[in-house]
Amino acid sequence: MVNVDSYLTLDIELSANRHHVYIGSNLLDSPCFLRGQIASTKVCIITNEIVGDLYLSKIQKSLVGLQVDAFILSDGEQNKNSLTLNAIYDFLIAKNHNRDTTIIALGGGVVGDIAAFAASTYQRGVRLIHIPTTLLSQVDSSIGGKTAINHKECKNLIGSFYYPHSIIIDINTLRTLPKREFISGFAEIIKYGLLVGGDFLNKLPELVAFDFLEFSQDKFDKLKAVIAASAEIKINIVKHDEQDLKGVRQLLNLGHTFAHAIEVVTNYQRYLHGEAVAIGLYLAAKLSYHLNYLRLVDLELVDNLLVKAGLPNRLPKDLDLTKLKLAMLLDKKVKNNTLPFVVIKKIGECCIESGITEDILDKVLIEAA
Amino acid sequence: MVNVDSYLTLDIELSANRHHVYIGSNLLDSPCFLRGQIASTKVCIITNEIVGDLYLSKIQKSLVGLQVDAFILSDGEQNKNSLTLNAIYDFLIAKNHNRDTTIIALGGGVVGDIAAFAASTYQRGVRLIHIPTTLLSQVDSSIGGKTAINHKECKNLIGSFYYPHSIIIDINTLRTLPKREFISGFAEIIKYGLLVGGDFLNKLPELVAFDFLEFSQDKFDKLKAVIAASAEIKINIVKHDEQDLKGVRQLLNLGHTFAHAIEVVTNYQRYLHGEAVAIGLYLAAKLSYHLNYLRLVDLELVDNLLVKAGLPNRLPKDLDLTKLKLAMLLDKKVKNNTLPFVVIKKIGECCIESGITEDILDKVLIEAA
Repeated sequence: MVNVDSYLTLDIELSANRHHVYIGSNLLDSPCFLRGQIASTKVCIITNEIVGDLYLSKIQKSLVGLQVDAFILSDGEQNKNSLTLNAIYDFLIAKNHNRDTTIIALGGGVVGDIAAFAASTYQRGVRLIHIPTTLLSQVDSSIGGKTAINHKECKNLIGSFYYPHSIIIDINTLRTLPKREFISGFAEIIKYGLLVGGDFLNKLPELVAFDFLEFSQDKFDKLKAVIAASAEIKINIVKHDEQDLKGVRQLLNLGHTFAHAIEVVTNYQRYLHGEAVAIGLYLAAKLSYHLNYLRLVDLELVDNLLVKAGLPNRLPKDLDLTKLKLAMLLDKKVKNNTLPFVVIKKIGECCIESGITEDILDKVLIEAA
Repeated sequence: MVNVDSYLTLDIELSANRHHVYIGSNLLDSPCFLRGQIASTKVCIITNEIVGDLYLSKIQKSLVGLQVDAFILSDGEQNKNSLTLNAIYDFLIAKNHNRDTTIIALGGGVVGDIAAFAASTYQRGVRLIHIPTTLLSQVDSSIGGKTAINHKECKNLIGSFYYPHSIIIDINTLRTLPKREFISGFAEIIKYGLLVGGDFLNKLPELVAFDFLEFSQDKFDKLKAVIAASAEIKINIVKHDEQDLKGVRQLLNLGHTFAHAIEVVTNYQRYLHGEAVAIGLYLAAKLSYHLNYLRLVDLELVDNLLVKAGLPNRLPKDLDLTKLKLAMLLDKKVKNNTLPFVVIKKIGECCIESGITEDILDKVLIEAA
């Protein structure tokens, strides 16, 4: 039996809900650790083909003696829809899962979003454990209680706010992540850097340039620290605005109004979410520059960081900018027909700006293509 | 313009949520009152054919100047499913409803359940106002934050906990309610009587024997008082166990384990929900009697109250009891394979009993057929 290396724990205390984030490097190899997270006699693991092949049997072994069922999604954002959701409900019923079951979301953002939505609505809510296996889901989508499925016309249009019982981040799972997906996770980390600035941001140029696929102990420790710090930044923002009502939480949408629209007009096929966010961050920086907030040198800092990480930083030349603008107006954040943008006042200080004119927006989009 | 008669207000303060119940007799005839409840520029009223014909234009008139759309369901529990839900999402998108819209649930329990579930999940939650128009929804389903749709194999299997902004109970809407539906609402009121006993219960024999279709001022006032008292009883129970986790809230399920199973095996066609609850209350009383809790005289009290109200109080002779028991085991309340029943220790004091043997259950079912 493998002992668990030292791991970090973050306590999240939100309204009427307290849960933990465990961050370590061999949590999935410790049957006792996993078993200790389960309080029910039945478990349903929701995962996808690829992640399932890698980790499912390991988790099933840890939970021997319990009824453990596995629902395997096809890989990809296009499956995060009501058809898949209904298949999950049918599966849970067919396997006799009651209100005291536990759903484990094992995978990246797509798996996490739909599994959490299923958990929040099956029998009006069952226990949920996130085991995010991508860098992006470890630093972002598994934290903060947002669940979602897509509607054919709008990403994440259907969803809920629902907190997991615990979030188990095993950094070892990043070893099996394709390089492109790994890199895309840095987009959200860079976003946190722009939100908080300071030391966190200063460490990023060195961090994103690492080839983490080598995974030396030193690199591992640095990665663990930055994942924990990222989760903490997100938790601190979320706890001031859990239901996304006060505008505070919308700061986390820095670059995302652009990113979601880019994903819609490219049918979620061309870019990974993190890659779209990277382009969105550049657009948000450019917008902030044209509003006379961000200095040129800081715009270049953002640009260089994205390049260093190996992330895309410009709109593709063949993108239809009119369609892109239309998609932005269908965004959930549209309020009384104006679309608020998160802008960077200065590095480490972002705010929401609602009076963006179409002229400036056009200028930003054209210059970034 | 009609002035609002004196109305009662209940404040509901639950975790991170505060909302109001307004109980009056011409609230829907007061444009100012309704208009004052809406903080958005867009409203979507979800109702059914019958209630829509009666009250839709009245409400639309009150909200002139706003974008008011109406989604009309076909009447009946069988439409409370994912197909209708998806049609509601499509409609909201087609009419460009954003996160700042308000959904009004205008109708009985079916409309309230599905409209509230849609409100809780569209864009991760939009503002919701309940306007319950049946006695049952006024005293029960609109209160307490439960939302639901049915799965083909189990009633209310998919749902959430989501509180409305306000609940507007206009007793005038009961004037247009078919007598059978009106009477069925008394089943839940009788349930409250068994839960709290005392003065509330003592008044019921006189109240349920009233022919409220006459609607004299005196009867009206008594009805308003009992609706307000019922809502208050429910709120008091709910606030001790909002998420239905501690067992307290399950007291509200008195008679309902039986009732849901009766509805399932009769395909939701034969009985109104309240009628199934009435039979379930008799079965729960009979069970409590056989467990040596309830005295014979109190079993007869329950029986007489149901008869006086004109509610069914026995299982139909042609019902397959084996199927009925199977349906009970699929109930959401099954926990580690045992089915807890709410039993009446004595009038005004109910509790959850999990060790019910199949023998006693069989005896109860056979004797009540």
